[in-house]
This record gives sequence, C-alpha cells and structure tokens, in this order.
Amino acid sequence: MMQLNQNKKVNLLIVGLGLIGGSYAKALTEKGYHVTAITRRQETIDYALQHGMIAEGAAFPDPELIGRADMVIFALYPHVLTQWIAQNQQHFRPGTVLTDVTGVKCAVVYDVQAMLRPDVEFIASHPMAGKEVYGIENSDAAIFKGANYIVTPTERNTPQAIALCQELGRELGFARISCLSPEEHDDMIGFVSQLTHCIAVTLMTCSDCEHLVDYTGDSFRDLTRIAAINDEMWSELFLLNKQPLLHNMDTFMKEFARLRHFLETEDREGMRDMMRLSTRRRKLFNKPKD
Amino acid sequence: MMQLNQNKKVNLLIVGLGLIGGSYAKALTEKGYHVTAITRRQETIDYALQHGMIAEGAAFPDPELIGRADMVIFALYPHVLTQWIAQNQQHFRPGTVLTDVTGVKCAVVYDVQAMLRPDVEFIASHPMAGKEVYGIENSDAAIFKGANYIVTPTERNTPQAIALCQELGRELGFARISCLSPEEHDDMIGFVSQLTHCIAVTLMTCSDCEHLVDYTGDSFRDLTRIAAINDEMWSELFLLNKQPLLHNMDTFMKEFARLRHFLETEDREGMRDMMRLSTRRRKLFNKPKD
Repeated sequence: MMQLNQNKKVNLLIVGLGLIGGSYAKALTEKGYHVTAITRRQETIDYALQHGMIAEGAAFPDPELIGRADMVIFALYPHVLTQWIAQNQQHFRPGTVLTDVTGVKCAVVYDVQAMLRPDVEFIASHPMAGKEVYGIENSDAAIFKGANYIVTPTERNTPQAIALCQELGRELGFARISCLSPEEHDDMIGFVSQLTHCIAVTLMTCSDCEHLVDYTGDSFRDLTRIAAINDEMWSELFLLNKQPLLHNMDTFMKEFARLRHFLETEDREGMRDMMRLSTRRRKLFNKPKD
Repeated sequence: MMQLNQNKKVNLLIVGLGLIGGSYAKALTEKGYHVTAITRRQETIDYALQHGMIAEGAAFPDPELIGRADMVIFALYPHVLTQWIAQNQQHFRPGTVLTDVTGVKCAVVYDVQAMLRPDVEFIASHPMAGKEVYGIENSDAAIFKGANYIVTPTERNTPQAIALCQELGRELGFARISCLSPEEHDDMIGFVSQLTHCIAVTLMTCSDCEHLVDYTGDSFRDLTRIAAINDEMWSELFLLNKQPLLHNMDTFMKEFARLRHFLETEDREGMRDMMRLSTRRRKLFNKPKD
C-alpha cells in the first residue's frame, strides 16, 4: 500500500476546485505532491495552473488523468459526487483510493461503497474547516491549520486505506485527526455545525435587523457570522441529515425553553446553574490563541 | 456647561474599577484627563495607581473625591449603583453630571432620576464592548475601538448633558455614538445581546459536550464564545429586562420552529428563502476587517 509522506511521487487527483478543493490543491502542491485536477470550468483550471496550484488539469472527466491517479479526492456537492463516480468509475486504476470532503456521511458513504468497483476503495472523510466565501479565488491552505479532520470508515474499509486517509489529513496540516462511524459523525455534525447554522440563520431572519448594526456588539456578530450561507449546499446537507438535525433542533429547543422558564418564574438560581455549567464546559473549547 | 475635549482639566471620577471601569480609566487617562476612582478594594486602587491608570483613588466613598468630580461614571452592578447613589449623593457638587455603563436601562434610569437631587443630572449610557474575563487586570482601552456607544436620555435630561455624554463616548474611542430611549435600548439589547447569550449558554448545556471539542469547527466555537459568562451579573441583567427578553426569546423560538418545519416537510425552497434572507442581511454587519 502506498504511503503519502514518504513518497511525494504519489499522484493526487482533486475533483472539484471550489474553496475546499482549491485549498487542498494549494496545501498538497506546497507539500511537493504531484496534484492534478478535474473541474467543470476551463477558467478554473487555467486559474489553478497560473497560480501554481496544480500540475495538470482538465475541464472534463479525462480518462487519462483519472487512470493515472493513486488517490482521488472529491470536493463536490453530495449528489454530484455520487453521479460522478457512477459515470466515471470505469477509468480508475485498480487499487485507487477515493476520499471526499462532504459534510454529511451516511447519505454518501453507503451509496458510493455499494456501487463501487470491488478493486477500488472509498474511505470518507470530513475536513472541519471552511469560510463564508466560495470559489477557487478564496482558497487558502491556512484554513486547515489547527482544525479537526474526521475519517469515517465502515466495515468495508481496509486498515491501509484508513491510515492513508489519516495521513492525508496530517499532510494537509490538520491539528487533530479522528475516526468516527458515519452515524456518529452525522449526529455530531448535526449538533456542532448544522444546528449552529440553523441558529445563525434564524437570528438574522427573526427580526428586521437593518438598524441593529448601529447598536450591536461583538456577541451578535459572532453568533451570525455563519448566517451568510451557501443556500444551495446547506439546504442539501440539511435534507441529507434530516433525522439527526431534527433531533438536535428539538434538544436545543427543549433546553432553551428551560432557560425561558427560569426567567419567567424569576428562578435566578436555575439560570445561574445553567450559566455556571456553560462557563465550565466552554473552557474546554478555548484554543490556545483564545 | 463644561466640555470634555477642549478642557482636559475636567475631573472625572470612576466608581467601580472592574473590567469596564478599569478600561475607562486607562482610556481617559491616556487622553490626558484627571481621572480619580472609588472602588471597594484597596488592592484595586493600588493596582490602578501603580499602572498609571488613575491620579488618585479611595477604597471608600470619599466625600472629598466625590465633591471634586465634574463628571462621575458608574461602572457597578445595577443594584449596587442605585444603592451607592442613594447613600452618597449628598457629596456631589451642584452641577455634577453622572453617567453609567449598565447593560439595561429602564430598570436603572427612572429609579435613579427619581431619587436624585435636582441640582445633579444622571444621563445613562451603554458602551457596547466587553470581554469574557473580569477585573482591572484585564482592562484594555482597545475594546472600545470600532465599537458602539448608546446614550439613553429621558425627558428629564438636558441637551447639554446629552452632548457631554456623547462626547465622553467619542473621547473613549467608540466608532458610533447613538441615542435611543431607555425602552428602545432594552428591547434592542434583549435581542442583540441578551438573546445571544441565552442561545450560547443553551448550546453548551443541552448536550454533554466533553468530546465534541475533538470534532468541532469554528462555527460552534463562535456561537459559544460568550457562553463563558458572569452568572452573577447576567442573571441580574436578565431579570431586570425580563419582559423584553422573554419577548425576544419567543420571537426566536417561533422562527426557529418555522425552519424546523421546512426541514421536516422537506420544503427546500422554504429553507433556501430563509438562508438567502439571512445572507443578505448579514452582509450589513460585516466590519471592514471581516
């Protein structure tokens, strides 16, 4: 089985050069790998070549580029990813390892693994990093520094492919690499990522905020930063993770109603208990720079 | 009527040297004013003197210091502020202007103005700046840069005192100085500040989060930064602003339930409409540096 950091001749193909695909290309090219790319628009390939982000690229599913890849990284929307593999998997070389960057796992992993050729392996992963802007122009390898990277193997995955995918996370610069089952991942992501986006969006839409900008402090800014959201991508991710997200929304609403009840009944100790617990727990999340 | 920026001989007394009182002391001393302070602990006065933050200070309500002040700034908890003025107002010089930094207004302003000597004026204000740490050791004049400052006059206030208080905001370095009625202020603050703190606390208490730190991205960190909260102060502020805060919590819950309904019924366009609105509105809140 190939290894990454001892073999910079490894051929890495990135499919989809948006913000994340572009940031992968920058990080891996900087590390010395031979990085190629396939994406929809020729202008994007031209941009990536001009900026030294990739060695070669094509604006169509070039069988030759696909066949030369040792590892393929898909940075596509979930439904596009599944289609792409269905239409182009005949071009993979036997032994190719595939991974992705998708924000939900159960809805992707099992479908892809079920339809995939048996001589090719798909090991899913999720880089927990991003920005509120899109496109290759905004790509930035620095977003991975200090961030978390999650590999989500199933029983179909080999230890070798899992190790390779973890190595990819390390080579990209992630601070913490962990493994979760697709189910654990989706429940966790429904809480820390999707629920927080639901809250941020709601905060911006529940009040006609136009004049609030004159009076607001950093709290409101912080809680709504992610309310500038890619509606096409996030609505797809929410629907693909419907049950875990609904469950997490309900958990949040129930606890929020508990705080509201303490306030309504002027139960100051009830409120203070919640605040003391939140203060204690939040300290675990401080980054060194906080 | 005195003016601030043309008369650095103005005598400014700060009562309460915590994070905000200490930051005021630093900012105003740096600007060249004669700043004095009264606070509970002698060690705090010693610290402020040693660090050149004040010219003089006392750990008790020194009648001489109080009588020399042209303007008094109260940086105390709401219930302490009202008591302090009731017990010490005989020492003010006629014509003294008082202001505060309290995060709620209706519960403070009317009581203070009703009991105050007629030859002294209380004009309330709210510096929209802070940190998740406390005490004079953490004070920092830079927290006011780029922040908002709100003056909340009532019909008892004179144009001169309102102007003086606005000037204080400018001298402290605030970027935007505005005026709201105490009622408008409390409703607005119930939304942008208190509601956001309720959400952050709830996010930290609604799930046993200890292992989530290994998987979380910046979204969750951003939304819970303010979950490290001074429970004594914030529970007091919540109770003093009970009705506006309950109203804002209900508005938020209703809109959150609307988003939940779109997800449950798989109404993708409903979700995308909310996301597009939130994206459009959030852009108004970008700071130049964002």
